[in-house]
Amino acid sequence: MNHIGRIFQVNIFGESHGGGVGVVLDGVKPGIMLSEIDFSNDLGRRKSGGLGTTPRIEEDEVIIDSGVFNGYTTGAPICLRFLNKNTRSKDYSNLVKHPRPSHSDWVAKEKYDAFNDYRGGGHFSGRLTLGVVSAGVVAKKILGNVKFETKLINLGGETDPKKFHDLLKKVTEEKDSVGGIVSIKINNVPVGLGEPYFDSLESTISHLLFSIGGVKGVEFGRGFDGVAMKGSEFNDCIVNANGKTITNNNGGINGGISNGNEIFLRVFVKPTPSIGVEQETYDFEKGEVSTLVVEGRHDAAIILRAMVVLESCCAIALADAKLINEALKNN
Amino acid sequence: MNHIGRIFQVNIFGESHGGGVGVVLDGVKPGIMLSEIDFSNDLGRRKSGGLGTTPRIEEDEVIIDSGVFNGYTTGAPICLRFLNKNTRSKDYSNLVKHPRPSHSDWVAKEKYDAFNDYRGGGHFSGRLTLGVVSAGVVAKKILGNVKFETKLINLGGETDPKKFHDLLKKVTEEKDSVGGIVSIKINNVPVGLGEPYFDSLESTISHLLFSIGGVKGVEFGRGFDGVAMKGSEFNDCIVNANGKTITNNNGGINGGISNGNEIFLRVFVKPTPSIGVEQETYDFEKGEVSTLVVEGRHDAAIILRAMVVLESCCAIALADAKLINEALKNN
Amino acid sequence: MNHIGRIFQVNIFGESHGGGVGVVLDGVKPGIMLSEIDFSNDLGRRKSGGLGTTPRIEEDEVIIDSGVFNGYTTGAPICLRFLNKNTRSKDYSNLVKHPRPSHSDWVAKEKYDAFNDYRGGGHFSGRLTLGVVSAGVVAKKILGNVKFETKLINLGGETDPKKFHDLLKKVTEEKDSVGGIVSIKINNVPVGLGEPYFDSLESTISHLLFSIGGVKGVEFGRGFDGVAMKGSEFNDCIVNANGKTITNNNGGINGGISNGNEIFLRVFVKPTPSIGVEQETYDFEKGEVSTLVVEGRHDAAIILRAMVVLESCCAIALADAKLINEALKNN
Amino acid sequence: MNHIGRIFQVNIFGESHGGGVGVVLDGVKPGIMLSEIDFSNDLGRRKSGGLGTTPRIEEDEVIIDSGVFNGYTTGAPICLRFLNKNTRSKDYSNLVKHPRPSHSDWVAKEKYDAFNDYRGGGHFSGRLTLGVVSAGVVAKKILGNVKFETKLINLGGETDPKKFHDLLKKVTEEKDSVGGIVSIKINNVPVGLGEPYFDSLESTISHLLFSIGGVKGVEFGRGFDGVAMKGSEFNDCIVNANGKTITNNNGGINGGISNGNEIFLRVFVKPTPSIGVEQETYDFEKGEVSTLVVEGRHDAAIILRAMVVLESCCAIALADAKLINEALKNN
Repeated sequence: MNHIGRIFQVNIFGESHGGGVGVVLDGVKPGIMLSEIDFSNDLGRRKSGGLGTTPRIEEDEVIIDSGVFNGYTTGAPICLRFLNKNTRSKDYSNLVKHPRPSHSDWVAKEKYDAFNDYRGGGHFSGRLTLGVVSAGVVAKKILGNVKFETKLINLGGETDPKKFHDLLKKVTEEKDSVGGIVSIKINNVPVGLGEPYFDSLESTISHLLFSIGGVKGVEFGRGFDGVAMKGSEFNDCIVNANGKTITNNNGGINGGISNGNEIFLRVFVKPTPSIGVEQETYDFEKGEVSTLVVEGRHDAAIILRAMVVLESCCAIALADAKLINEALKNN
Repeated sequence: MNHIGRIFQVNIFGESHGGGVGVVLDGVKPGIMLSEIDFSNDLGRRKSGGLGTTPRIEEDEVIIDSGVFNGYTTGAPICLRFLNKNTRSKDYSNLVKHPRPSHSDWVAKEKYDAFNDYRGGGHFSGRLTLGVVSAGVVAKKILGNVKFETKLINLGGETDPKKFHDLLKKVTEEKDSVGGIVSIKINNVPVGLGEPYFDSLESTISHLLFSIGGVKGVEFGRGFDGVAMKGSEFNDCIVNANGKTITNNNGGINGGISNGNEIFLRVFVKPTPSIGVEQETYDFEKGEVSTLVVEGRHDAAIILRAMVVLESCCAIALADAKLINEALKNN
Repeated sequence: MNHIGRIFQVNIFGESHGGGVGVVLDGVKPGIMLSEIDFSNDLGRRKSGGLGTTPRIEEDEVIIDSGVFNGYTTGAPICLRFLNKNTRSKDYSNLVKHPRPSHSDWVAKEKYDAFNDYRGGGHFSGRLTLGVVSAGVVAKKILGNVKFETKLINLGGETDPKKFHDLLKKVTEEKDSVGGIVSIKINNVPVGLGEPYFDSLESTISHLLFSIGGVKGVEFGRGFDGVAMKGSEFNDCIVNANGKTITNNNGGINGGISNGNEIFLRVFVKPTPSIGVEQETYDFEKGEVSTLVVEGRHDAAIILRAMVVLESCCAIALADAKLINEALKNN
Repeated sequence: MNHIGRIFQVNIFGESHGGGVGVVLDGVKPGIMLSEIDFSNDLGRRKSGGLGTTPRIEEDEVIIDSGVFNGYTTGAPICLRFLNKNTRSKDYSNLVKHPRPSHSDWVAKEKYDAFNDYRGGGHFSGRLTLGVVSAGVVAKKILGNVKFETKLINLGGETDPKKFHDLLKKVTEEKDSVGGIVSIKINNVPVGLGEPYFDSLESTISHLLFSIGGVKGVEFGRGFDGVAMKGSEFNDCIVNANGKTITNNNGGINGGISNGNEIFLRVFVKPTPSIGVEQETYDFEKGEVSTLVVEGRHDAAIILRAMVVLESCCAIALADAKLINEALKNN
């Protein structure tokens, strides 16, 4: 369902070609300074227009519809909206008969039947992540001093950032797409966030991350590559009274709970399925496999725009964990 | 918190050295045949005693405390319990002062203060997974014809199963531990399970998986290794009217929704932190780093026993998704 | 928090003097015919303008922002909004220093501190019920053939409807207000809706009703007046194979579950606290009790407009109960 | 469903004739002193044996199965259980064919079909309230200094307590039953508990109260009798800087939020439907109305035992409201 969170609650809505997209946030304390300008940095990081992203530029300005008064949160729900512009619809009905492979087109049609809003991906559109990023902005305010550092560490198999530009150019020319791996480092997280069974920090963070289209892998700390290590190598021994460890194979989380070290995770985003390359896939009208070419402008590397979305997911999970911890800590 | 699920709800409780551990299940339809014998296969797969697991054998028999009458579920909550035996306590207080590295010992003490039940890991004990496996047994009944195939595909860096025995023997002798990677294949899942934002199947499955101690990575379909593939290679083209694809890089899930193909995922479980090898870690009483040797019998490869737990997590998530889908499908 | 429901979920937002008010609905099946015109009847019943209500007429037109395509629900969340017009603010700051007795003014200031949006009641404004009524409209569509009959059976102590007009005229002239008692009859509810502990139908219906400002009593069936009856008199004996009873002292609900007879309840709404009559109440600025006269146009009998809101609450609770029942029934 | 609460969570299970009944509590802070003796007072108030209650005495001793260590809560879930004894079953199957009027017998059979555990009311048994009372005991510890005063103010129409004894004697002899009205006064509740839309204090308190079998009416403050008052009479004017009011027609709650005055409510409990008097009701086996006499020992006035249960419901709702408030207050 389109709702997540126990105290800091996020409720998302909208479609690519409806009136707009947005999010309702609940469980936000009163007294947090908040205005439109606070959103511009993170929304800017999500923007298209650069190499590897669609040239279709969306001017996304947040509308703060409720929950803020005189520049501060009031404690009431915050509704944040974005208008849909530039959606003079081309005809999308072809994608119903001849769905894009690996996209939500077909499963959405099966699940919602003839009633699915298929225009531009409908409710499955990447445009919905405007709400996630906006929620993340408020989450970061709740978190205060927590710092995020989000990097693209692998683009289409390439790990040398100096070569990303050439790769993007090539893939764009081929009308193909690439995925990548993003690393997220989170610092200044206090010890003790996260709940055992079933709300470990890894659980709540991954829950949000995997709800973002294209995310197909999440690993914390050393991750899958740690499989060859023995316990004696993998263990992060504590070296001082603050719980500081030298190694950080556990990514700052033990038993589902933050241990005060850097939280570290990596996220794999698959290559976006919407490509201009010819593909052979089933045509449900013709009743046979036939060639599909998806027209229009695509994101060759949606991961460039997704980075801030993934970071926002982490912030949302941590903000809720922080509020739960405040309710339950021994004092 | 210790509760998960929207319709099929799982509520876990217990500690290693209290009265016992267990689970309360809600949202179970009436009329499902259920008795103690149904649990024996999956509980047996979780048992210790074999090479690579602790020789401390636990005879875990499920007690069906409520929700079953004349051999069938009644529709009321099902309480399943396991008694703690064999827990004549050794003195665990040393682990409070000198916590095991990478274990929950220290974060639990910080979070719950002097009140944490530290005996045998307390509420963080692997013993709690008896409840998860039991919930999984009921979930599988809800799912009916869905089939699970769970395999250990990497043990401590070794991918050849013929060599697992020797590796386990060696690691056990060294009093060290190894982790591994488990693959889970799920077949006969109908098209349409999972909900967009925020309850994609990947989200709900990973949420449960990451709540299990030691899980540090989850990937679906091709996973992280797919990073070098282009969109034109990664896309799973549909070849017939049932949505069948030849490749399955997406692991049977598009847009968070099952597409009717095999659901495929891999889970990384880190080497268990409780080892007999000497480690240098902080002693909070002495106020300095000093040598810790964890006495007692350990699981050299807890992953051998965790496999059925991970499979159960998948079953729980799918059962809830199935019930939600039944409430909401167009009919 | 501003969210309710397990499958049919309602999330409310907005303030009297912000951008607008609205509601996000989740858990709505695809394929339900829905357009703006469907809301006009119930919204009309909530309108002001008649005797006993404020002469400040609000033209409230629903904006369907998402979740509907080609005239049918899509299965995605439905955002329904209402713009705030006519809110050129007078100065409300006096109500912060000198709060209206029995209103939310003072508790909101205590709870949210200086950050409370006090203009026109802010998030506590009756204007928020536009969202409740809109949610009710969709709930009724989910319920299909269920029929509601909502009546004012007591207005300010008067039970003869022929005398309501004169009473309203008198109270309006006095700048005072009256409350009343509303009866709600619900027919065609199938047997079996409602869940034992803790989601009895009485629980979920009353939860929603008591969230509406001014509701101070809810009783089902015979209600408080049944206190003098013995069990042998109160029991509703079944007279046919469909569970039909002659008497209906239980109001159509046994053990928290609908029994197929008419669901019958009564709701007490207190006289609206905002009145033009002089009152002696504490002035927090002056630090003493002093005379307060609330200027402006008031609803002498807000209950006239609240009736459809209360009916909507019942519909919302029943719609969720129906969907849960569909997920869990034995079939 | 059998789960309630956002932070302080209560999950109930069990049946009258299964292994036992109990409750799992989550969201309990570490460091609260708790042992079996803490339960004896409130459990004692629920006991049978006195005039007007069944002579079948149940020795109900709580088993603390988890979440407590060295006499203090640990922060982990608390499982509290009660064994079922003395349940050598008589044959209850007659009640399936010839259900008791106004009882859950028939709706449970319709809802859960042949699988319903009908013995002694099954999951609908009043025995389940042992869990509610136990949860209330812990809730009161969370609430600290909050004081409850619960009184029977009307028994079967009689309001003079001096006459209750004679009434009970008479009704018991007649094998009939009586209901009553309970008043609950709650003091020392801080200002600011409760959340607007949809978790007003009235909402969360009534939700719990109406989940208790037999509760058919709830009113706050002046309640239904206030219908004849005008706004100028009903309003509780504030008289000092602490928000103190002289009158308390609103029962200590404005806008769903506690205002620091005494919380005052009344609850109507219908006469228990299980009586020894002959009744004419439908026999589903015979296919016609016929005479039913329910054999066995009954509670002539279950309300005597229900009083502490109702009080516990209030405590549970307030404890959760307190924890939510701690997470969200401006500080």
